[in-house]
Amino acid sequence: MILILEKGITDDQKSNIRSTLFKEGCIVREISETGQNFIGAIGKDSLGIDFFEQLPGVEKVIPISTTFKLVNRQMHPEGTLVQVGDVLVGGERITVIAGPCAIESRDQALTIAREVRRYGAVLFRGGAFKPRSSPYSFQGLGEEGLKILAQVREETGLHVVTEITSPAYADMMMKYIDVLQIGARNMQNFELLKCVGRMGKPVILKRGLSSTIEEWLMSAEYILAEGNDKVILCERGIRTFEPYTRNTLDLSAIPVLKKLTHLPVIIDPAMPQVSAKK
Amino acid sequence: MILILEKGITDDQKSNIRSTLFKEGCIVREISETGQNFIGAIGKDSLGIDFFEQLPGVEKVIPISTTFKLVNRQMHPEGTLVQVGDVLVGGERITVIAGPCAIESRDQALTIAREVRRYGAVLFRGGAFKPRSSPYSFQGLGEEGLKILAQVREETGLHVVTEITSPAYADMMMKYIDVLQIGARNMQNFELLKCVGRMGKPVILKRGLSSTIEEWLMSAEYILAEGNDKVILCERGIRTFEPYTRNTLDLSAIPVLKKLTHLPVIIDPAMPQVSAKK
Amino acid sequence: MILILEKGITDDQKSNIRSTLFKEGCIVREISETGQNFIGAIGKDSLGIDFFEQLPGVEKVIPISTTFKLVNRQMHPEGTLVQVGDVLVGGERITVIAGPCAIESRDQALTIAREVRRYGAVLFRGGAFKPRSSPYSFQGLGEEGLKILAQVREETGLHVVTEITSPAYADMMMKYIDVLQIGARNMQNFELLKCVGRMGKPVILKRGLSSTIEEWLMSAEYILAEGNDKVILCERGIRTFEPYTRNTLDLSAIPVLKKLTHLPVIIDPAMPQVSAKK
Amino acid sequence: MILILEKGITDDQKSNIRSTLFKEGCIVREISETGQNFIGAIGKDSLGIDFFEQLPGVEKVIPISTTFKLVNRQMHPEGTLVQVGDVLVGGERITVIAGPCAIESRDQALTIAREVRRYGAVLFRGGAFKPRSSPYSFQGLGEEGLKILAQVREETGLHVVTEITSPAYADMMMKYIDVLQIGARNMQNFELLKCVGRMGKPVILKRGLSSTIEEWLMSAEYILAEGNDKVILCERGIRTFEPYTRNTLDLSAIPVLKKLTHLPVIIDPAMPQVSAKK
Repeated sequence: MILILEKGITDDQKSNIRSTLFKEGCIVREISETGQNFIGAIGKDSLGIDFFEQLPGVEKVIPISTTFKLVNRQMHPEGTLVQVGDVLVGGERITVIAGPCAIESRDQALTIAREVRRYGAVLFRGGAFKPRSSPYSFQGLGEEGLKILAQVREETGLHVVTEITSPAYADMMMKYIDVLQIGARNMQNFELLKCVGRMGKPVILKRGLSSTIEEWLMSAEYILAEGNDKVILCERGIRTFEPYTRNTLDLSAIPVLKKLTHLPVIIDPAMPQVSAKK
Repeated sequence: MILILEKGITDDQKSNIRSTLFKEGCIVREISETGQNFIGAIGKDSLGIDFFEQLPGVEKVIPISTTFKLVNRQMHPEGTLVQVGDVLVGGERITVIAGPCAIESRDQALTIAREVRRYGAVLFRGGAFKPRSSPYSFQGLGEEGLKILAQVREETGLHVVTEITSPAYADMMMKYIDVLQIGARNMQNFELLKCVGRMGKPVILKRGLSSTIEEWLMSAEYILAEGNDKVILCERGIRTFEPYTRNTLDLSAIPVLKKLTHLPVIIDPAMPQVSAKK
Repeated sequence: MILILEKGITDDQKSNIRSTLFKEGCIVREISETGQNFIGAIGKDSLGIDFFEQLPGVEKVIPISTTFKLVNRQMHPEGTLVQVGDVLVGGERITVIAGPCAIESRDQALTIAREVRRYGAVLFRGGAFKPRSSPYSFQGLGEEGLKILAQVREETGLHVVTEITSPAYADMMMKYIDVLQIGARNMQNFELLKCVGRMGKPVILKRGLSSTIEEWLMSAEYILAEGNDKVILCERGIRTFEPYTRNTLDLSAIPVLKKLTHLPVIIDPAMPQVSAKK
Repeated sequence: MILILEKGITDDQKSNIRSTLFKEGCIVREISETGQNFIGAIGKDSLGIDFFEQLPGVEKVIPISTTFKLVNRQMHPEGTLVQVGDVLVGGERITVIAGPCAIESRDQALTIAREVRRYGAVLFRGGAFKPRSSPYSFQGLGEEGLKILAQVREETGLHVVTEITSPAYADMMMKYIDVLQIGARNMQNFELLKCVGRMGKPVILKRGLSSTIEEWLMSAEYILAEGNDKVILCERGIRTFEPYTRNTLDLSAIPVLKKLTHLPVIIDPAMPQVSAKK
């Protein structure tokens, strides 16, 4: 529900509304835009519009018609900016995030970090825990990789991004990392989503291989529902029948997202792999 | 096969090679690039490399490894330009083609044509024969629509594009239209492809709803094999699981095509239809 | 619209309804089931329910809510049987249709026909006009192949099925063939659909590579709208991301079709091609 | 690698081979079929064929050419049977596993369990931890649900299956549950796969929404690589463009799997949801 507050609402009325909503188990968000005053409240379905409308100081109640609530653009019409150090993701400026697939050594990481910074990257990304299709592939350096990432930040000033693959690594991530990444394969690993929701750090949420836009937004909703609004959506291509390219970048998802949600959106423009002819 | 000719080849030898190839039923194309001399020959599989190599004046023979031959970039490395009046499709300049889905009246067509010309369109497109999913939908004005298109050309100077849906309309199209369009649903209507191949007019070949890049190129090959090289490929989005947008524009198909074929590529950037939530 | 007729309707009233509907350009079908009397009428949208309800003898009018009308199960609740010689397609008995991909010679065709008849096939299928992805592949024997099919019928008693790829071949097909097949690639070749609709012979309509069930039914509707109700739907697998099998047989489409349409449904159980590991 | 052992191999030689392989970090499996003696060894790529061939008692070495090794049918040509109590999954008999989507109460679970047992179910399935698209949907009874499942086993004799959504629930699952289920959304949650691999209990591994057969087998490989061979593959339909049915059961995956792997395969025949017309 979006509660539109009366122009002359008093501070007491407002704090009264908030505490009533909390008591009923609602998730509450302040929404202010161009002088107007709103409150967003996500609660149990059993609380009807009537319940909200009779609260003193509420002028009107607008239900949120989509299944996703907190990520709905209505909750934050001017768009969310996610702050990482002095970098703002989501503003006018394009944020370049770059780095190697996997951290292999201190030297490799530092060399690449300095190079990508020179070309405009403002965040450094590298994998320490790699979710591999095969159990026999290199699975990443683990904590050793996280330590290298922390050193990269210290020496280059770039804040660092890495993928988290299990709640078991939360403590390590809190210690070394600035931005958490949820990979495409874990987009509906709800236990992991709840975990990064509670961690409170900025999260890059990649779109699942064949997730609809709505499922993707629902996964973001999991993170916001735990109190963490710092979510960045990353479109990285979907799976289609076409064998020439590994993924099909869903470019038209961007304007759809801009309309549906207030969260910032980035793209993973990994080069299409032109496979050899079969 | 690509035949690389000897530096000192005589005109007699060259014309000898050509007539031998014709006699064997080969399709022959001259390829010249930066001073070098090649001949492209598409023939029966029964003609081995040996047959071509022993022809006097041939230095070396390179087989074309892809299933598509005439559209292969090797056959025309610098890229094909398709000329429509004084418009060149495929050069440095972006070609804007615009117009209504269906021609409804002379007034409608002329009004839109003048407007789109004002905004940079150099070709005018409108449907006279509409391939509709339902037999009960408006099927277009037919020949009446073609006449209106011819009038638009006369009054605005814009050359005109329309969809051909059956070989039965070939004569009418020859009379009124400058560029033929093959719609996505007819991309593998091979009888129609052969027909437009023989007509010789420029053809815009739209990608089938779920056609692979290779199948698309093979359909273009049908047109070129009939002697018509004036084919423009039009990427218009593929069918995926995503319900929010009608099609998913396959942006990464463009660099793949640029690598594989010499034909010009355009995009149908029809706005993604954001459907109402289900 | 489904018109439910009054119990005591007179023959005059009934013939009056029919001629009024014809005059308004409606397509009319008699529907009789368990003693009850209905008329199905597909007409212009401009004719509202009121128009039909005020016709003398009409008790009630039920609109058909789907975009497909004539193929809707409401129009023929007990299911259509398509008769080919003494074979009924659509009844309790499974109809086995078999034969080679392409007719190559009289010997080949006859040998295979006798063999498949021995194993229970009641219709013989073979291609004379082959829609090939490549213009350089064998395109079928053409009319020669049709003549062989007619000989097979004469010598084995099996009625014969073959694919029609263009209205240009309609006359030949009328002369030699019992059942026409529309291939997957031509499922939305509407000019061809109208043509087989007018030919009146039984038609096997294969599902397009990536056609929805609704698009498929709309293509059948094209044939029925021309007056030919003898349509057999053939599920042959859809295109998905899976590279191991060429098509994914959409088994669950069968119960959906059985609910939506009165047309008989067959399956093309071509063996999944297990491709070599990439 | 598959090591074919010499006919006259001694017990000492055999135990020598095993200990050498262990020392080199290989995963080792005994394979015996119709009197012949094999050893399967999955090791580092750096160990070439030569290394294995020179071991005393080894006659011949056959590399496993697929990326999946332990699940490859070559490793267990006669097929794996997974034992759950006195139920064998994978033999000639069809195993019926049934139960409610979510456990809601003791009464509900027991009533359904008795009913499905009456109709031939031999394992009872019910969800205690539900992975829901929306954070606001009922997430299952949690441990309370597991306790109810244990009671169902006690009172009906049916062994029980439930989904595990996080390694955090491993201890609880060990206490109450007979068969673990990995849901489609977690098919590439590799940390969870490793966890159930170490738990050693039978695992039903559902195919991901848009996973290729190869990716699915690689996920099973993760479980076997941890020492747990009791994996049952469950085909449950893949995501396609078709909107009428929620999933498209990939029937042709079954023969493909039967060829590629020794693991038993089951199907989740959840009824296609015929959605209301859009």
